[in-house]
Amino acid sequence: MLHDEHEQYMEDALKMAEKAAALGDIPAGAVIVHGDRIIARGYNTREASEDATGHAEIMAIREASEVLGSWRLLDCDLYVTLEPCLMCAGAIIQARLRRVIFGAYDPKSGMAGSVANVFDLPANHRVEVIGGVLQERCGDVLRDFFAKRRKDKSFDETD
Amino acid sequence: MLHDEHEQYMEDALKMAEKAAALGDIPAGAVIVHGDRIIARGYNTREASEDATGHAEIMAIREASEVLGSWRLLDCDLYVTLEPCLMCAGAIIQARLRRVIFGAYDPKSGMAGSVANVFDLPANHRVEVIGGVLQERCGDVLRDFFAKRRKDKSFDETD
Repeated sequence: MLHDEHEQYMEDALKMAEKAAALGDIPAGAVIVHGDRIIARGYNTREASEDATGHAEIMAIREASEVLGSWRLLDCDLYVTLEPCLMCAGAIIQARLRRVIFGAYDPKSGMAGSVANVFDLPANHRVEVIGGVLQERCGDVLRDFFAKRRKDKSFDETD
Repeated sequence: MLHDEHEQYMEDALKMAEKAAALGDIPAGAVIVHGDRIIARGYNTREASEDATGHAEIMAIREASEVLGSWRLLDCDLYVTLEPCLMCAGAIIQARLRRVIFGAYDPKSGMAGSVANVFDLPANHRVEVIGGVLQERCGDVLRDFFAKRRKDKSFDETD
């Protein structure tokens, strides 16, 4: 796949991230692609839904499973604006996704190389990982959100 | 907490594991305790619901968040019959659980020491981990399930 095709799908994931920000959630967005078609979308709803498992990747994985009628998302690629955390890296492996393509690196919680690379741990399924697609713009969405949040001082900074 | 109190809650988790087995899912069960009360229960529904994120821990975490009206499961303990996988270990940290107490070790996918100990990775929340509570019985439930499954030959052994 050409790099600009990755960028096109990451644009769609960015639109999802903006939905999260609009609801007051840390802006991360994801889409899942099967063939040449987006079959599922998700964005972080942790605060809005009071559910710690409501990350963009999990939301997209659950929707894709409904669409395909199977928990095995074989030959599917997940695009996400932020490097996956431990939970989401695990969910990506559990769902048998073929590939994860992410935007911004997360030095605090990113588990695809930043804090650790859990995709390299022994598992019965291997996922190809590509990082840094539209990295600047994916990072800007987060920086803008946190700058506004500091200004509003309406959130607990320890999370 | 006395060890036999851990065993009492693990008995409840075992009942949940049996529900999974009855539906044809790998038998893992979980309960979440807040104070001296079970506030949520979950069992593996991956096959029944065609959702790779439908592990016992995730189901229990989502229910506990609904009960408490918060994604932060502070001062809550999760009892689960099987050592958590990568996804569930991540979800346990994300949900800010105080403690995870598990039964059987999982040499293939267990991430609380068997394959790796991801609870030791740098994170902004630390979870206390206790393994091996009612280990034999929690393992027997799994061994019985897989023995029956091999006999039935109705499942794909590669999963």
